[in-house]
Amino acid sequence: MSDKQGMLIVVSGFSGVGKGTVVQLVFESLPNIQFSISCTTRKPRSGEENGVNYFFLSEEEFEQKIANDEFVEYTKTFTNYYGTLKSEIDKPLKQGVDVLLELNVVGARRIKEMYPDSVTVFITPPSIAALKARLIGRGSETQDSIERRLREIENESKDIEKYDYCVTNNIARTCADEIVNIIRSEHLKVSRQNLKNLFNE
Amino acid sequence: MSDKQGMLIVVSGFSGVGKGTVVQLVFESLPNIQFSISCTTRKPRSGEENGVNYFFLSEEEFEQKIANDEFVEYTKTFTNYYGTLKSEIDKPLKQGVDVLLELNVVGARRIKEMYPDSVTVFITPPSIAALKARLIGRGSETQDSIERRLREIENESKDIEKYDYCVTNNIARTCADEIVNIIRSEHLKVSRQNLKNLFNE
Repeated sequence: MSDKQGMLIVVSGFSGVGKGTVVQLVFESLPNIQFSISCTTRKPRSGEENGVNYFFLSEEEFEQKIANDEFVEYTKTFTNYYGTLKSEIDKPLKQGVDVLLELNVVGARRIKEMYPDSVTVFITPPSIAALKARLIGRGSETQDSIERRLREIENESKDIEKYDYCVTNNIARTCADEIVNIIRSEHLKVSRQNLKNLFNE
Repeated sequence: MSDKQGMLIVVSGFSGVGKGTVVQLVFESLPNIQFSISCTTRKPRSGEENGVNYFFLSEEEFEQKIANDEFVEYTKTFTNYYGTLKSEIDKPLKQGVDVLLELNVVGARRIKEMYPDSVTVFITPPSIAALKARLIGRGSETQDSIERRLREIENESKDIEKYDYCVTNNIARTCADEIVNIIRSEHLKVSRQNLKNLFNE
């Protein structure tokens, strides 16, 4: 146990695909996985708590952490910073605890570069056409915002082939079970096991 | 479906580890997988049927098939030939059907060389020391045969690290479920999926 590193799992998916629900169900099945809390400069939405959903930072605080090289990855999207603290990942991994990150395609690519052993999973909807139609149809967003999201879907689509796994969120429970199976199977990889234990009994 | 190849799964394990039972349970969970029947020159044991457990061939027949380049791999162990026919693998794979092979470490290595996309799984006992003790203790074999099997275990152990996955057969049902999960997860790999289907709806 002690000389076994934890596994890093990165989950991405299109906006509106239901990532949050799926990830929540994964945690219910695998309660020992640690969810890495991201930092952001955006304002908390109703019900969101600092240190639970995000670490909510001011722009000055965020930029100070950039200067201190505290992030393993960060991005600035439109108006806000988002980033993952090294401390949120490296400590649990060293203790043999698996860590799950929810990241966009840019963040996922950075993590894969820095942690080649990480497992990356992309969640797609059963139909991309339906996802686009829903976006356009829900009427809660400006034309600008809709067009930006559609462009995002186009851009992110090109990156799916760089992921290790791709799962479809048709039924959230089924999709979560597939991710749970992926995590369990990855732990059975010879490259992740300490085979010496088998022989030193 | 039609432009998706089947997956080749190779299962190996020490003699006496209970491979047969585990593989049987895998087939019960995944009845669509095809078991590739091997050829052998050894005599059928009681209850074994030609074309079910093995294709039982004479040495002449086997060597004729070698000459005709009909085998994807074959080995001669002590007194008998064992081999896998190309036709047993390539036809179902092309039809999109998964194929499972039970092979020793030499055969598994050959398959992995020829089919780099194949998934190789090694089944270990919970304790190698206990497996050895059982071999020595069961009294049904000559000293020569026991020593040969112990050497086999030593030799095969060195090859475990070349496998993709290593599973422990503590409870056969649990071990079989782990292999079923591995097969299902492997199918979710981006490299095995036809992502074009996602966009051409």
